[in-house]
Amino acid sequence: MENMVKKWDSKVNSASDISVTARGTLSMLMQHLNEEDKRPVIKLSQGDPAAFPCFRTSHAAEEAVINALRSAKYNCYAPFVGIPPARRAVAEYLSRDLPYKLSPDDVYITSGSAQAMEIILSVLAGPGANILLPRPGFANYEARCAFSNLEVRHYDLLPEKGWEVDLDGVKSLGDENTIAIVIINPGNPCGNVFSYEHLKKIAETAIELGLLVVADEVYGHLTFGCTPFVPMAVFGSSIPIITLGSISKRWSVTGWRLGWLVTCDPTGTLQKSRIVECINSSLKIISNPVTFIQGALPQILDLEKTNSDYFSISTSLLKEATEILCDKIKEIPGITCPTKPEGSVFAMVKLDFSQLEDIDDDMDFCVKLAKEESVIVLPGVIVGLKNWLRISFATDPKYLENGLERVKSFCKKHFKKHFY
Amino acid sequence: MENMVKKWDSKVNSASDISVTARGTLSMLMQHLNEEDKRPVIKLSQGDPAAFPCFRTSHAAEEAVINALRSAKYNCYAPFVGIPPARRAVAEYLSRDLPYKLSPDDVYITSGSAQAMEIILSVLAGPGANILLPRPGFANYEARCAFSNLEVRHYDLLPEKGWEVDLDGVKSLGDENTIAIVIINPGNPCGNVFSYEHLKKIAETAIELGLLVVADEVYGHLTFGCTPFVPMAVFGSSIPIITLGSISKRWSVTGWRLGWLVTCDPTGTLQKSRIVECINSSLKIISNPVTFIQGALPQILDLEKTNSDYFSISTSLLKEATEILCDKIKEIPGITCPTKPEGSVFAMVKLDFSQLEDIDDDMDFCVKLAKEESVIVLPGVIVGLKNWLRISFATDPKYLENGLERVKSFCKKHFKKHFY
Repeated sequence: MENMVKKWDSKVNSASDISVTARGTLSMLMQHLNEEDKRPVIKLSQGDPAAFPCFRTSHAAEEAVINALRSAKYNCYAPFVGIPPARRAVAEYLSRDLPYKLSPDDVYITSGSAQAMEIILSVLAGPGANILLPRPGFANYEARCAFSNLEVRHYDLLPEKGWEVDLDGVKSLGDENTIAIVIINPGNPCGNVFSYEHLKKIAETAIELGLLVVADEVYGHLTFGCTPFVPMAVFGSSIPIITLGSISKRWSVTGWRLGWLVTCDPTGTLQKSRIVECINSSLKIISNPVTFIQGALPQILDLEKTNSDYFSISTSLLKEATEILCDKIKEIPGITCPTKPEGSVFAMVKLDFSQLEDIDDDMDFCVKLAKEESVIVLPGVIVGLKNWLRISFATDPKYLENGLERVKSFCKKHFKKHFY
Repeated sequence: MENMVKKWDSKVNSASDISVTARGTLSMLMQHLNEEDKRPVIKLSQGDPAAFPCFRTSHAAEEAVINALRSAKYNCYAPFVGIPPARRAVAEYLSRDLPYKLSPDDVYITSGSAQAMEIILSVLAGPGANILLPRPGFANYEARCAFSNLEVRHYDLLPEKGWEVDLDGVKSLGDENTIAIVIINPGNPCGNVFSYEHLKKIAETAIELGLLVVADEVYGHLTFGCTPFVPMAVFGSSIPIITLGSISKRWSVTGWRLGWLVTCDPTGTLQKSRIVECINSSLKIISNPVTFIQGALPQILDLEKTNSDYFSISTSLLKEATEILCDKIKEIPGITCPTKPEGSVFAMVKLDFSQLEDIDDDMDFCVKLAKEESVIVLPGVIVGLKNWLRISFATDPKYLENGLERVKSFCKKHFKKHFY
């Protein structure tokens, strides 16, 4: 039987063996935890507010799902593009913030925005094509591009400019084979929010280079600073935008797996393109989102029905968490946070190795932090920025505070002796 | 802007443009319906019992999902392999029918069996590899193989032998690049159920050729004839089996999107293979199934908790439907059903063009049937057998009877004059 396995192993698809994802790294870090440490593990790693009772989703959203299930109208397969009321609800929800109205036909209901990303990247992966991704970014983009054999070129987000896009860099990267640029706003992993003016410049650059814009707005409306959230699709009349989104983060239901891919295309430019054709085809050969959750979507997205307190409570919690984060980090030697997050649930903090000893790099920092303090954070290298850390603040504020207290002990312990 | 679209169109991935799926064909057929016909459309096309109130899932299953949701313990992301209680529940559920016990670690929870199929086919699609698929079969296999660039070789199912596998054919197809054979049991689209003896021969052939066996058992336990369902994994000690399954059909909840991929590997042969490694990697970059439905799985799969009446009622309904089908078809000129289905929800029926006129082939038959009688059935060519039809009997028996009555009128109208 061993010969058989050898044969099979020689035939497996190496593109399916992708190890460098946030999830892969986090499970590796979990293996470094010290079992002797009886304190609970503190995970400041995942963007998953739903793991904390303080972010529990609205009663209205839960009841909407229960009613849809109890109706027994939604136990069957859904049309591959999504059920019509769900498509209509997303079109209306997004149109509230746009200078034009989206049509339900623009909307494809997906199994979380992860599947929306999966679809668009596989559609754009023609021979020789390349795509521009942000650095730092969201490692699943790189993993899915590798899987689909789509060449990645990274443009930088500039910490000294509040993580704005390095537009000159974008201009130097794009060529005739560059099919699209991905922007993530509000920012994962930087917690920044692009201003209207900056988004306008991104649109102008995309037009100049002939790039399709894929706007990952999974954290749309999760903002709590001075810059309001503006959807990229406000520029849809100048250039078609593909918007990815979901209810996962704003409603704190990451496990419900309900998202969307939307062609924001008021001029009808994309409608007849092969891109839209291929999106439709792709949806026929994947597993679509749960029908009864689609059935609940019109109720969930009806903001009058969701207790509006729910949104203000959750954004206040996130704001409180960023304040704790920034205050605490000031007390920790060897770490700085250059920009206070204004959106999403992540911040990037910088390690200063001139102040730290016995630690090789960000990965080593995270492994040792797991081992010595039972705290899990993601090394920046996984999101494209070596010697930084990505910290999630989508947690109970007290939990975050305790976690940072342990990071402080850790950094003090590894603080270079000659600094004392 | 048009130049931009031209550029993008030239770069899209043609592999993502797959039109020949059952779903694609069915939506094409729907476009041929005659709006003047005021009778309701009758769809004998989809394997979706959940679309009919008579198959409504058990109260216990619905309550299990509602309780999981209300607990608020399952709104968050799940581990990429599935939550431990769900993996344990599937291991126990499948082990009831096996001579050994599966471990929870053998089980990967997927978004329906469609995603399980997607994962295993992408893992097996190494350079130069080929895979053996049944003809007739389930068109999504071909579509996913095309998407993953995995060469397909078809072996025949033999109508004259109750749709058993043509094992001599299998032997002549396999070579050193053949990585696996897919079997679908109970059969989609033939409604056959393989006997223990035949499965044993399939296992022996797989061993002889060094093939991994992928056993699609989506219709497992949906049998109502003389042949009992035997899972392929009973031969797991002789050769590792990858079993795909779900709650979709047996519980009549196709829209809940909850399935599994299981390595049935009591000798531990696969455990250290790259196949298992790649399955794990693939799960990290796809959208996993809904967490609260996973949370309900232990209750759903606990057969003592599901009202056992539920299963006997639904299989009786299917049995009744097959009797209507076979009786009715005897009255219809130009169509025969060589084998009475004993499982799944599909039958293959044969068209006899020596008796029919004004119809070119099975596709033309289905287009005209949609147009003239507002009945939708799938042309056999889509599942690999030209000039046959695939008929679903996962419907209310009365609905099926009405549909076949219309097929009868249609065939009478197109019956060759000189036969009268």
